[in-house]
Amino acid sequence: MSSSIGNNIRVTIFGESHSAAVGMVMEGLPPGEKVDMDALRAFMKRRAPGRSELTTQRKEPDEPEILSGIKDGVTCGTPVCIMIRNLDTRPSDYDEIKNIPRPGHADYTSYVRYGGFNDYRGGGHSSGRLTAALCAAGGIALQILERRGVAIRAYITEIGGFDIDEDTAAASEALDKAKAEGNSLGGIIECEASCVPAGIGDPIFNGMENDIAKAVFGIPAIKGIEFGAGFRAAAMTGSENNDDFFFDQEGCVRTLINNHGGILGGITSGETIVFRAAIKPTPSIAKEQRSVNLATGENVSIRVKGRHDPCIALRACPCVEAAAAIVILDHMAERNKL
Amino acid sequence: MSSSIGNNIRVTIFGESHSAAVGMVMEGLPPGEKVDMDALRAFMKRRAPGRSELTTQRKEPDEPEILSGIKDGVTCGTPVCIMIRNLDTRPSDYDEIKNIPRPGHADYTSYVRYGGFNDYRGGGHSSGRLTAALCAAGGIALQILERRGVAIRAYITEIGGFDIDEDTAAASEALDKAKAEGNSLGGIIECEASCVPAGIGDPIFNGMENDIAKAVFGIPAIKGIEFGAGFRAAAMTGSENNDDFFFDQEGCVRTLINNHGGILGGITSGETIVFRAAIKPTPSIAKEQRSVNLATGENVSIRVKGRHDPCIALRACPCVEAAAAIVILDHMAERNKL
Amino acid sequence: MSSSIGNNIRVTIFGESHSAAVGMVMEGLPPGEKVDMDALRAFMKRRAPGRSELTTQRKEPDEPEILSGIKDGVTCGTPVCIMIRNLDTRPSDYDEIKNIPRPGHADYTSYVRYGGFNDYRGGGHSSGRLTAALCAAGGIALQILERRGVAIRAYITEIGGFDIDEDTAAASEALDKAKAEGNSLGGIIECEASCVPAGIGDPIFNGMENDIAKAVFGIPAIKGIEFGAGFRAAAMTGSENNDDFFFDQEGCVRTLINNHGGILGGITSGETIVFRAAIKPTPSIAKEQRSVNLATGENVSIRVKGRHDPCIALRACPCVEAAAAIVILDHMAERNKL
Amino acid sequence: MSSSIGNNIRVTIFGESHSAAVGMVMEGLPPGEKVDMDALRAFMKRRAPGRSELTTQRKEPDEPEILSGIKDGVTCGTPVCIMIRNLDTRPSDYDEIKNIPRPGHADYTSYVRYGGFNDYRGGGHSSGRLTAALCAAGGIALQILERRGVAIRAYITEIGGFDIDEDTAAASEALDKAKAEGNSLGGIIECEASCVPAGIGDPIFNGMENDIAKAVFGIPAIKGIEFGAGFRAAAMTGSENNDDFFFDQEGCVRTLINNHGGILGGITSGETIVFRAAIKPTPSIAKEQRSVNLATGENVSIRVKGRHDPCIALRACPCVEAAAAIVILDHMAERNKL
Repeated sequence: MSSSIGNNIRVTIFGESHSAAVGMVMEGLPPGEKVDMDALRAFMKRRAPGRSELTTQRKEPDEPEILSGIKDGVTCGTPVCIMIRNLDTRPSDYDEIKNIPRPGHADYTSYVRYGGFNDYRGGGHSSGRLTAALCAAGGIALQILERRGVAIRAYITEIGGFDIDEDTAAASEALDKAKAEGNSLGGIIECEASCVPAGIGDPIFNGMENDIAKAVFGIPAIKGIEFGAGFRAAAMTGSENNDDFFFDQEGCVRTLINNHGGILGGITSGETIVFRAAIKPTPSIAKEQRSVNLATGENVSIRVKGRHDPCIALRACPCVEAAAAIVILDHMAERNKL
Repeated sequence: MSSSIGNNIRVTIFGESHSAAVGMVMEGLPPGEKVDMDALRAFMKRRAPGRSELTTQRKEPDEPEILSGIKDGVTCGTPVCIMIRNLDTRPSDYDEIKNIPRPGHADYTSYVRYGGFNDYRGGGHSSGRLTAALCAAGGIALQILERRGVAIRAYITEIGGFDIDEDTAAASEALDKAKAEGNSLGGIIECEASCVPAGIGDPIFNGMENDIAKAVFGIPAIKGIEFGAGFRAAAMTGSENNDDFFFDQEGCVRTLINNHGGILGGITSGETIVFRAAIKPTPSIAKEQRSVNLATGENVSIRVKGRHDPCIALRACPCVEAAAAIVILDHMAERNKL
Repeated sequence: MSSSIGNNIRVTIFGESHSAAVGMVMEGLPPGEKVDMDALRAFMKRRAPGRSELTTQRKEPDEPEILSGIKDGVTCGTPVCIMIRNLDTRPSDYDEIKNIPRPGHADYTSYVRYGGFNDYRGGGHSSGRLTAALCAAGGIALQILERRGVAIRAYITEIGGFDIDEDTAAASEALDKAKAEGNSLGGIIECEASCVPAGIGDPIFNGMENDIAKAVFGIPAIKGIEFGAGFRAAAMTGSENNDDFFFDQEGCVRTLINNHGGILGGITSGETIVFRAAIKPTPSIAKEQRSVNLATGENVSIRVKGRHDPCIALRACPCVEAAAAIVILDHMAERNKL
Repeated sequence: MSSSIGNNIRVTIFGESHSAAVGMVMEGLPPGEKVDMDALRAFMKRRAPGRSELTTQRKEPDEPEILSGIKDGVTCGTPVCIMIRNLDTRPSDYDEIKNIPRPGHADYTSYVRYGGFNDYRGGGHSSGRLTAALCAAGGIALQILERRGVAIRAYITEIGGFDIDEDTAAASEALDKAKAEGNSLGGIIECEASCVPAGIGDPIFNGMENDIAKAVFGIPAIKGIEFGAGFRAAAMTGSENNDDFFFDQEGCVRTLINNHGGILGGITSGETIVFRAAIKPTPSIAKEQRSVNLATGENVSIRVKGRHDPCIALRACPCVEAAAAIVILDHMAERNKL
């Protein structure tokens, strides 16, 4: 039932798009860890709206307020609660959608799940706004991991089907077109976590792949995830896909290539963890769509108003880093590697 | 740390490839549910080895023995334990690999994770053999779901990069070639769960996508998962990907197409749940590969002996069904839909 | 590692005595439940300090602020977060104890547990102040249960060893004496939960006794719990202790007496749940005590300053009700009785 | 819903009194731990029936069979499954009770909880027989703890209200009388866990008291638990109950007395953990009792046949040790103290 994740380090996310605040509670953090609030703010800003013409114009200072668990800039070891006030809410933008679920959104499924009592405004608890809380937790995790030498970096590889390195101009043009038309584009984000020690994770249901996938699907709009060669591996032979082992000059076991994405049998190999996530196009589009009026029982048409991103992938990179960091930190804690 | 999954219905898997038995404990099952052992055996046989030339020649009767929780063919509501004895084990096949991890396997990562105390024979707890236990649990879940009208069906769509419907001959030829060469192929399995009620699942971290992904990555060799349009959605526009809602003739809210794979915001929409999983090629191949000798510190070459499948995807369909069934049953129990 | 409890309805408590706020997140609440904030405030006031000469003079308005999960006075079904600002904090009261753990408090154990990084001021996360958050969660649970006919009521039966009904004068005198001497008294609280349906709870580790005990020990100063006849049952014969069953006039199975405290084998019988909790004397006393200076390594003497209750049991009744309500609500949700 | 306990080391118990076997799965054990099966058998024998005239005459060899997770007498780190076959079952003993719940037993509550599908024979999953599985898990935990210097010992202090040291003759006489009359007696068990490191456990809901209580209530017939001075503390003043700290000659922080039972604020102090559990009289008695016939709706009288202990406390000591060991091991694992 829960909006929580983690076993030894557990993150619980609360809030709705238009509630008083969104936030998170993070239990089990090691005590004595410095939390650099400037760095946290900078990290959270990477997902914040209003930075460019291509992101929603909703302006939120997204100021994280520490409610507990951090004293004099250092973790106490007790639950950290950070909240972010919702300030620039315009509920009237959502009056129309009260009974008319937006295609591609969680409006209809939440309506059924919560018997109509969900906060429909701005998608409520399913809003992308909740990723501010995810990034607050992930930002702290990233700072702790960084001190252990673990670096996590996510970047966009594709927008609207175009490789952003090889087809930069095409991707850019597609974005402009989508924006002009009130339409949107999907994208692919790749994430690398380097220098995670070997031997982290568990077999069967609590492997690194299982748990990273579980966390990453917590980011709205993610519809797929693959590790290492992923779906490409399905078209390979075993001799192509298997990564040979060798001892490197320091006597460490390594693999020459990394089709396994740093994870074998759910457990880290010491190679860089690599995964890719598919982000669907922002479902909020200005184009006319068909929907239903749940109050009247009529089929209707809808044009979603409000301030939306033509490509949510542009802001999702820190969210992906955050999700990965939370899981890796949790598993490292469990293996006593913090 | 655990080989367990589920919140209201919880499955714990135990066993090693060459331990006395593999098995599972399933807690939280509704009482009074008939368990048809013949149907369960038939389901488990779909994953069992030895059925054709293309699967491993290890012969296991895979006879599930009920230890608890089922009386007179009906669930008591208390934990069900089923074990499957390991009979046809030939540990000597694995003497060589004790110190030489097989590329693409969990041998090395388990060695690090467990400080060398893992049961290396046949991959130990990370062996595909453990999916017999998964299927025992999943088979029971499927029987219960079937009585609620939920049908789950997984099928192979690609082998070695060939669509098995459109390029049947090519796929078959590639399989023969891989087998002849002691090589292996990957594949893609698609799974559909129809008639799952709308409103099942949770936002953020415990959505249906999160939890199905977590369970499916519990099957060895899975390296990717996507729901609905999945990675294809990343190349679409919002107007292409969004599934319009409409009232059907019975007054039910439906979508015309199903790019969302039956899940929006982690919660079921009532449309068929659709996902695809990428299966890497069986890592056990007879071809020479490079590896390391962990005892001597030398780089070595290895040729994996034993009885192995040229394409593990051929036996993985019931495992995927089992994983999906366990998660859907758990979430339906949580929403009081059983 | 966690300050959380519950499976289907999960409460996570955060905050320190002198952090910005204390609060709680409550996941899994049924949607559409009215939350009467006036009733909640009234309930929380029962544990609030400053109501009489016998409770600490720390004045806190204890105003619960809803951050999420409640819209227009009704639960959305998504996580409810309520925070209570810490206003009247006087950290200087605690300067002395930074390195000198107070006997009977968690200062020393927290120091070891958190490597000295715990917030020592006022007991930090282990402070009785955190029960404000417990009562916020429990108060909501009580309102929901009340609508299902379940009533939970805790009351003091003993103070300082005196039965407060039979030895009222003696108890009162002992309290006055303790207060005058800067000393404190323990007490016993009894709690009754009536009209909990039969068949709630689970065998072995997740029974009602297990889970109520786990929750009640979350209240600082509780050192024992017993259900029904409890420790008295240990001195009985089976024929004395066993509660005979009979059909009442409505055809319900009942017991004539209730030595079993409404729970048999972890599962409710339909009789009133009855338990008693032992509350140790408030550890903060003005009398001189021996302790250690962790910074200097010297044995020292300490006289605890600050504003403290001579008998914490006086304020603990709503906390006991809250703990019981959270557990009963969680188990009723699991059995679909909400 | 579960018959499981633990966070980092998790024990799941399965079986019914008359199912094929009872057993347990233990996840998260450290790898490389020797499991001495002779010592385990000896430990399990302490709870086994048939050792004297005062325990049930049911004869069970109680032979633990390792199904997984232990290779060459050493833990692999993967789930350990041990089962104990039920051999000497006489289901016909229980025919009568199918519809007539035995007073003091879980028959009626299980009937309601499981809609009549519970295995009523011998109490099913709620039978004391399940403590064989608890002891198998606890016995392994005790062996691991012993290697870390932690010793856990439980012993009876009272039988039928008589102190067994001071009133030995009276206790013995009461036992004989109870046996002769087909009646039974309760008792009190005290348990000490020495040399548990300081700083183990968590505040609020996951403290050592919370979790030991939760585990100990998993033993049938336990109706109360108290730590340190427990209920006696409720009659003390703060200056009597508070345990002063001092540095001992080795520079360790100690307390002179141990009213706190080795736990302050849920966290261990380094002093011996001490708790007492109240065991109700064996509910199975040969004396006539009133009950109900659930099939006919009539009030009836019942005389419980079968082979039963006049005082279950006599066999419960290893169960209490087992429960404590499982919890302490789990918490030590979480704090990296294994």
